[in-house]
Amino acid sequence: MVKQERAVRTRRAVLEAAAQVIGTRGYEAATMAEIIQRAGVTKGALYFHFASKDALARAVIAEQTDPFIPQVTDSRLQDAIDFTHQVAIGLRDDPLLQAGTRIAVETTFTDEPLVPYQAWIDIVTTMFADAKEKGELLPAIAPDRAAEFFVSAYMGVQLFSHAASNRLDLPERVTALWKHILPGLASPGALSHLDPHGRSVRTAA
Amino acid sequence: MVKQERAVRTRRAVLEAAAQVIGTRGYEAATMAEIIQRAGVTKGALYFHFASKDALARAVIAEQTDPFIPQVTDSRLQDAIDFTHQVAIGLRDDPLLQAGTRIAVETTFTDEPLVPYQAWIDIVTTMFADAKEKGELLPAIAPDRAAEFFVSAYMGVQLFSHAASNRLDLPERVTALWKHILPGLASPGALSHLDPHGRSVRTAA
Repeated sequence: MVKQERAVRTRRAVLEAAAQVIGTRGYEAATMAEIIQRAGVTKGALYFHFASKDALARAVIAEQTDPFIPQVTDSRLQDAIDFTHQVAIGLRDDPLLQAGTRIAVETTFTDEPLVPYQAWIDIVTTMFADAKEKGELLPAIAPDRAAEFFVSAYMGVQLFSHAASNRLDLPERVTALWKHILPGLASPGALSHLDPHGRSVRTAA
Repeated sequence: MVKQERAVRTRRAVLEAAAQVIGTRGYEAATMAEIIQRAGVTKGALYFHFASKDALARAVIAEQTDPFIPQVTDSRLQDAIDFTHQVAIGLRDDPLLQAGTRIAVETTFTDEPLVPYQAWIDIVTTMFADAKEKGELLPAIAPDRAAEFFVSAYMGVQLFSHAASNRLDLPERVTALWKHILPGLASPGALSHLDPHGRSVRTAA
């Protein structure tokens, strides 16, 4: 048991160190040696958990969606809006999420993109599909295609916000994103009661 | 005169070599030495035109909008749609444009982002402002804010397309982008006669 707990702690320390090193240096320039030093683990311990930098990067990306559990309320479209505002706060404040996004963007230009967007698309597709069943979407909208579009547009919006303000203005840019796309996404009945600012973010403010 | 022509040719050769080297290796890993070798110019000739890799990168970005001259027709919103489809073809086929975009995205994560989106935002703002004057936009839309949103969303869509298909599917993703945002952008009268596929692209096909 103690051994297992230690393994979990080591794994987490390596992931956080990787996030910090990759977040600072970028994916290409980050080295396993610096990650080992930063995590304060042995080389053997790191390679026990992650066979390569590629495997480590995939783990950082795979776990970036973990802290986000979308709420389920009467309006699944409002749940989606709230969820994307939660992610915006995470992108602003959480090194693991920032590193995952940086890896995602940078490896886009390599021969083997890690295609990390899929986990996000799956989450949004589920919410859009539920919203469609409840009559919250326009009849022509296909939830999976709309989710793919939404995630790609969101990726651009957060990149832009990163360049413009180190993501300080991301919450208001996410609000603007929803304001622009809701009229082409939501049924007129749903549109009237949706809040593009997000519910939970307002409550927390 | 001959001297001046040679200088123009040298400058162009350096820019194209820089685009190819940066497009292959990324901005950080690209070296002036490799760009000099690829361009087939002397070190002195290169530094006569560009004092640093940073200056060279800024020139690649500054000139990426040059080949695109938006047409001016009765519908400025349709002009904007057509323009973004022309850029999609350029992103798919033109190494200079591809390199400019890669630099733009990669330097987003450095301390001094080159904020290369501004030239695109200016072009789109002009077209949206004209469209607004013609009554093609919904009354609540501010052309500059809408252009900033559009360019950031487009950035994400082309990144996604790059990861998914090396940008082969970018034209259809640009069409999907317009389909999603036009209902929240265009006045009902304009919406009915706009073609999100773009006019010129269809004619060329």
